[in-house]
Amino acid sequence: MIRFIKKRSKKTGLPPGSLVHIGKKKEIKTKITIIDYDEITFQELEIEAPKECIIYKDKPTITWINVDGIENTQVLKDLGECFSIHPLTLEDILNTDQRPKLEDYENYIYIVLKMLSYDEKEEEISSEQVSLILGKNYVISLQESEGDIFNPIRERIKNGKGRVRKAGSDYLSYLLLDAIVDNYFTILEKVSEKIEGLEDEVIKNPTQETLNTIHNLKTEMLYLKKSVWPLREVVNKLERGELTLIKKSTSVYLRDIYDHTIHVIDSIETLRDMLSGILDIYLSSVSNRMNEVMKVLTIIATIFIPVTFIAGIYGMNFSNMPELGWHWSYLVFWIVVLIIGVTMIIYFKRKKWF
Amino acid sequence: MIRFIKKRSKKTGLPPGSLVHIGKKKEIKTKITIIDYDEITFQELEIEAPKECIIYKDKPTITWINVDGIENTQVLKDLGECFSIHPLTLEDILNTDQRPKLEDYENYIYIVLKMLSYDEKEEEISSEQVSLILGKNYVISLQESEGDIFNPIRERIKNGKGRVRKAGSDYLSYLLLDAIVDNYFTILEKVSEKIEGLEDEVIKNPTQETLNTIHNLKTEMLYLKKSVWPLREVVNKLERGELTLIKKSTSVYLRDIYDHTIHVIDSIETLRDMLSGILDIYLSSVSNRMNEVMKVLTIIATIFIPVTFIAGIYGMNFSNMPELGWHWSYLVFWIVVLIIGVTMIIYFKRKKWF
Amino acid sequence: MIRFIKKRSKKTGLPPGSLVHIGKKKEIKTKITIIDYDEITFQELEIEAPKECIIYKDKPTITWINVDGIENTQVLKDLGECFSIHPLTLEDILNTDQRPKLEDYENYIYIVLKMLSYDEKEEEISSEQVSLILGKNYVISLQESEGDIFNPIRERIKNGKGRVRKAGSDYLSYLLLDAIVDNYFTILEKVSEKIEGLEDEVIKNPTQETLNTIHNLKTEMLYLKKSVWPLREVVNKLERGELTLIKKSTSVYLRDIYDHTIHVIDSIETLRDMLSGILDIYLSSVSNRMNEVMKVLTIIATIFIPVTFIAGIYGMNFSNMPELGWHWSYLVFWIVVLIIGVTMIIYFKRKKWF
Amino acid sequence: MIRFIKKRSKKTGLPPGSLVHIGKKKEIKTKITIIDYDEITFQELEIEAPKECIIYKDKPTITWINVDGIENTQVLKDLGECFSIHPLTLEDILNTDQRPKLEDYENYIYIVLKMLSYDEKEEEISSEQVSLILGKNYVISLQESEGDIFNPIRERIKNGKGRVRKAGSDYLSYLLLDAIVDNYFTILEKVSEKIEGLEDEVIKNPTQETLNTIHNLKTEMLYLKKSVWPLREVVNKLERGELTLIKKSTSVYLRDIYDHTIHVIDSIETLRDMLSGILDIYLSSVSNRMNEVMKVLTIIATIFIPVTFIAGIYGMNFSNMPELGWHWSYLVFWIVVLIIGVTMIIYFKRKKWF
Amino acid sequence: MIRFIKKRSKKTGLPPGSLVHIGKKKEIKTKITIIDYDEITFQELEIEAPKECIIYKDKPTITWINVDGIENTQVLKDLGECFSIHPLTLEDILNTDQRPKLEDYENYIYIVLKMLSYDEKEEEISSEQVSLILGKNYVISLQESEGDIFNPIRERIKNGKGRVRKAGSDYLSYLLLDAIVDNYFTILEKVSEKIEGLEDEVIKNPTQETLNTIHNLKTEMLYLKKSVWPLREVVNKLERGELTLIKKSTSVYLRDIYDHTIHVIDSIETLRDMLSGILDIYLSSVSNRMNEVMKVLTIIATIFIPVTFIAGIYGMNFSNMPELGWHWSYLVFWIVVLIIGVTMIIYFKRKKWF
Repeated sequence: MIRFIKKRSKKTGLPPGSLVHIGKKKEIKTKITIIDYDEITFQELEIEAPKECIIYKDKPTITWINVDGIENTQVLKDLGECFSIHPLTLEDILNTDQRPKLEDYENYIYIVLKMLSYDEKEEEISSEQVSLILGKNYVISLQESEGDIFNPIRERIKNGKGRVRKAGSDYLSYLLLDAIVDNYFTILEKVSEKIEGLEDEVIKNPTQETLNTIHNLKTEMLYLKKSVWPLREVVNKLERGELTLIKKSTSVYLRDIYDHTIHVIDSIETLRDMLSGILDIYLSSVSNRMNEVMKVLTIIATIFIPVTFIAGIYGMNFSNMPELGWHWSYLVFWIVVLIIGVTMIIYFKRKKWF
Repeated sequence: MIRFIKKRSKKTGLPPGSLVHIGKKKEIKTKITIIDYDEITFQELEIEAPKECIIYKDKPTITWINVDGIENTQVLKDLGECFSIHPLTLEDILNTDQRPKLEDYENYIYIVLKMLSYDEKEEEISSEQVSLILGKNYVISLQESEGDIFNPIRERIKNGKGRVRKAGSDYLSYLLLDAIVDNYFTILEKVSEKIEGLEDEVIKNPTQETLNTIHNLKTEMLYLKKSVWPLREVVNKLERGELTLIKKSTSVYLRDIYDHTIHVIDSIETLRDMLSGILDIYLSSVSNRMNEVMKVLTIIATIFIPVTFIAGIYGMNFSNMPELGWHWSYLVFWIVVLIIGVTMIIYFKRKKWF
Repeated sequence: MIRFIKKRSKKTGLPPGSLVHIGKKKEIKTKITIIDYDEITFQELEIEAPKECIIYKDKPTITWINVDGIENTQVLKDLGECFSIHPLTLEDILNTDQRPKLEDYENYIYIVLKMLSYDEKEEEISSEQVSLILGKNYVISLQESEGDIFNPIRERIKNGKGRVRKAGSDYLSYLLLDAIVDNYFTILEKVSEKIEGLEDEVIKNPTQETLNTIHNLKTEMLYLKKSVWPLREVVNKLERGELTLIKKSTSVYLRDIYDHTIHVIDSIETLRDMLSGILDIYLSSVSNRMNEVMKVLTIIATIFIPVTFIAGIYGMNFSNMPELGWHWSYLVFWIVVLIIGVTMIIYFKRKKWF
Repeated sequence: MIRFIKKRSKKTGLPPGSLVHIGKKKEIKTKITIIDYDEITFQELEIEAPKECIIYKDKPTITWINVDGIENTQVLKDLGECFSIHPLTLEDILNTDQRPKLEDYENYIYIVLKMLSYDEKEEEISSEQVSLILGKNYVISLQESEGDIFNPIRERIKNGKGRVRKAGSDYLSYLLLDAIVDNYFTILEKVSEKIEGLEDEVIKNPTQETLNTIHNLKTEMLYLKKSVWPLREVVNKLERGELTLIKKSTSVYLRDIYDHTIHVIDSIETLRDMLSGILDIYLSSVSNRMNEVMKVLTIIATIFIPVTFIAGIYGMNFSNMPELGWHWSYLVFWIVVLIIGVTMIIYFKRKKWF
Repeated sequence: MIRFIKKRSKKTGLPPGSLVHIGKKKEIKTKITIIDYDEITFQELEIEAPKECIIYKDKPTITWINVDGIENTQVLKDLGECFSIHPLTLEDILNTDQRPKLEDYENYIYIVLKMLSYDEKEEEISSEQVSLILGKNYVISLQESEGDIFNPIRERIKNGKGRVRKAGSDYLSYLLLDAIVDNYFTILEKVSEKIEGLEDEVIKNPTQETLNTIHNLKTEMLYLKKSVWPLREVVNKLERGELTLIKKSTSVYLRDIYDHTIHVIDSIETLRDMLSGILDIYLSSVSNRMNEVMKVLTIIATIFIPVTFIAGIYGMNFSNMPELGWHWSYLVFWIVVLIIGVTMIIYFKRKKWF
């Protein structure tokens, strides 16, 4: 649950633009990596003080500044000063409980979205907030902790493969976004495998445990939906071609991400529908089992209660009970019992009770 | 329930613009505080007669008039005359059952919204109506009773921290709105903690009490939704930049409130979905318990009814029952009983009844 | 149900514009009252022949013609001729099964809406159709039967209080609409009180009767929704300022009605949601009661069936049953019975069955 | 079900515009009736060969060609050639599984919609497809079989009553559409009577049969919705005044049909909601009955099982059972039994079980 | 399930435009067939190397290149080079998990959609992705495996029947799309037959198997919906007439496909609604059966438990039980038993239990 509503209350009463980190403290040291490249040159370095970035601000080469760990608010403040980032943007970066959104601040575009990963131990989806700041010739990416999702992009820039070295900062942002969105499919595969497993279980052996799993998966899907749904609008804004920082040639690539996002949303809805279906089956299975229990009880009771009554009769101690003295009484008793039993069984067979 | 539909009936038949207070009488004395400031000067005072405000109407400094307690209709009337406020606006201020809305009356903007607080004793969300009147260089805020939510803003103006002393009345309204919206997150945290608690309870020990709690929380969420949903449109109108009283530089801050509002609405929907999920589990848990009760009954009955019948047979008093005289009959009886019992238990084990 | 679908079949095959009354016949004599006023003069009279109205058509004073009882089609025909009203409008006035709507016929605006009242005996909402024809300097209001809802307006015009004597026919229509919409709140209060009562009943003592009440209230809400929902569009059309017969100064008042309409619709939806919630609780309470019945049965059966079996054993008549002769057998029997009983009770306590 | 998805498969692989009849073969001979009129002249005749129509194509009088029975594709082909109707239109006329739609082919407007009738025997709604082709001065109406719904219009043209003889082909189409839409209200009345009947039945005596009736009515409503819903858009297109073949003076009449269509759709939704409500009550009634059955079982079992145990005790044959010899034992036994019984009954009364 | 989310994970980390086949490997050899025609000439041939296509690129005749089997990425690469197809298009062709979509790349239009077929053995709908590339005078169609759905079109071109030889590449695309959409109706017929079968089964003999069938059909409908829904937008884009490659004369045909698509979507929704209805009946039937089982149990228990108690009484061994010695006791016992039995049966009859 904590994943849904993060504690913002410590910010109550502070003026807007106050830099306070909201979210789970991860005690991660901030690490700033810079990749600076154009078609010919390539440079990769790690810096300590964010102020060193200032030289890259107006350099014509493309600069990608990657920040892992954002709990150190001073680093962010310095970075904000270097690239004249609006205080509200900095506040949003620190508040890791953001809805994905895109904001156009004329000199840069601020994009915030969720990077998801599936925690196999906890069996739940965990998310990290990724902020992208796209300027004319630089991209700043900020993650909560160090991840390996951007490594292939780093390699590609290094090797100069593909369009990347020839294209601008908008294409680089596209690559980063694409890596994140592509990753969503991996999560969906995980979840869909789980649901597939549930489908079998719910028919063959539904337990209270199954119900909890269904409930947990539903909560996961809710979380997934909440993280991905607003992305649609974000990518749509990027793709529509109304932002001056996005070149027209990049638009076709962004359209591709848009399609992927729609695909992810679609799949989430489908999986949610399937989960509802599975819940229906579960409830119905439980009800069927109850039915079966009732049938067993009824069959046993219906056969034995009447014959027990007959046995009870001849256990009575009335002085004048003629049948007691007859020679074949006991045999007749057994015959009657058998007739009652067989009749009942035929009756149940006809009712298809077993 | 009373919170949902307030008694408007006492107004039926009155002409429009009639000043009648609708809502729970709180017997609160009206208190008017004035804060008047610009970049250099700062003045804070409390006044008795609302007519004293007239001097602030056209003064170039920014004036914030805060009114706590609105049941005294005369005060409102005088205030309305001072600032030429439309009678319908005054009527709306007094009617504390308003939907959040924004109305543009050219010389001022009227905003009405709900300030929420969580009443720990009653375990319910209570709300107060806050009205804001934003003029060219004044802001009038009207609350039902004295609250402490605006205190940090008062402090900030006094200390001259942040943008506030340099910015206009629109920025001041932004700060007031921001304080109210930020407060919603506190309510959401409370509710989400409650729901988290429910999730455990519903699996481990679901009672009728749990059901009532679920129902109450659902009603709270309904109330929350009703109070917050229309706010979206209000903030959107403010932020779109079509109002002449809102400067462009404030727009970016209002966009931030808009994001927060969307976030709150989103979270409400998520919490509602979770509550539905919890209700499903509750119902299913109840059904599972019933199932278990049935199984116990069936196991006991199925084992003992047949053997009781056998015991009944040999309690019969027929004169001719050969088994009664045999020496090992009693032992055989016990063996038969045990066989029946064991068979049944194996059968139930196979059916996974225990 | 009759309230939902009125018999239109008697009109099948008739040409459009045929004047046939559709709805419950109420045998009400048509009564025409005229109020003619401007800022200075005021005149109130009742007329017999609708043709007498003709003098008011082009008179510069504001004329309000109120018609109670519309079953007399001839009256309508004459009125229609006087004010050159389109045959389709007349047809719509007579057909009391209209959805609320607004139609602009250039020389007049035709508005039809529902006046609701709560019938305490039948415990249901009953509705009457009210038609308004708004011309340049006249307003014709037509009701199915005589009502007292417009009396305060009549008084206000007479006394010359408020804006009404200075304003035009559009302001008069606003007053009529406002009276009708304000009345909806009274209905909502009634319904919400009923629902509040239900909430308690459903938890404490749910019966089949409760279910019927829930169902009836749901049907009432459906009816309410059907009557009010289309009003939103009607008032929106009025308020948007595209109609030449509506002056700009009246717009702000119509916006107020629009807010009220939205508020009513909102409240209806909220009440519907609450009813759904109450139905859920009802179903769950019923299920809980069943559960309790089952538990009592199971506890009794589980304790007594085994001990009855034991008693049965020692009622057998085998010649060779050594226990029968032992001296302490009977005491041992009682001890065994007590042990079984106590064990069972502990077991049930642990399972929290009682 | 066959009503929902008609066999289109025989058309698979054929080129577009292939004239193949899709739907239930009704073996109806095609009958072509022509009514040709203007303000002064009137002529009614039946023709054999569709080619005879050619003279009416450019005649200034209004011509209404009514075709009953469309299975003869040759007739359609000839007609299509006469009036230069697009092959796709002809294909659509023959395919009786169309959604209602309107297509503007510049020289004519093609409208297809459903004529509904209630089959009292089968207790289901049956539908027939009606196609209208509206040209400059002719209207072609095509029905699957001969119907009497257009007779009043025929009469009205003959007698020259109303606007019809003075108005153009667009007004004639309006009359035809109006006749069809008005007929929907008859169907709705039938269905609403059925639902009213159900409401009583479901409370007083719910059986499996009731459930089937609910299900069938739900399916009927689904069918109704499917047939009427798209009509809204059709009439809206007609009424908007963007079609050159529709004169402005007819627009006001089409607006009337639009209102009726909305009314029908609204009523369908309301009836569907009521059916859902009835299903809820049904399910709850069934559950209540089960509850009552359980109570009877539990009361009987709870009273008699303990006392049977006591009787069992004193049926035991232990040699040493002091109570057996006491003189008042039997009386005490009866007193104990009565105490147990009365206690139980008081307990059940308190629980409100009966 | 695998049909819903295909493994995209092997693409994670690859640059955009990487040609990797996603989907089930079918080991199908790529086969390229070319049909080249205009009004006079016609040529059909199969080629090996895709590079041979280059001559058709700018030839004024219409060329239809059909590719069966797309797993060979080299073929696609070559084809892409010949017709200057964007790498992202090629990537999309290979990724068989696409949502239907249309993309306009100025020199060509790329359409991707699903070809559905019903697998009778697996009782599920299987789908194949079909990509269409529509250039100025060529159409490239790419299928996952060889199908016979386009054969009638091939024949029609060969025979020169219909408009096809006179029309352009856009008309050819229309024919291909039409063939695919028409095929959907066949699937719907299959599914609707299944549902019809279910409707009977669910009332007469509902089993756990029925539930599984309902669930499977629901999943199929979900899959169908997912495949068809986005097609609406695709065809709408084509038909709107904003694409320069689509001639106006083809628009009317595309509108026809649009209608079909809407019809398919409508039918899917209707079938889904029916399935929900069937599920409701199933659940209710199960509940009714349980009810019946309970009644049998209760009738048997309620009749026999009291009389067994009476029999138990007279099996007691108290020394002083006067009734035991009376002569008519046994007869009286039987009379009492019969009275109890008959009373119970009358009681149950009144309650309508049987």
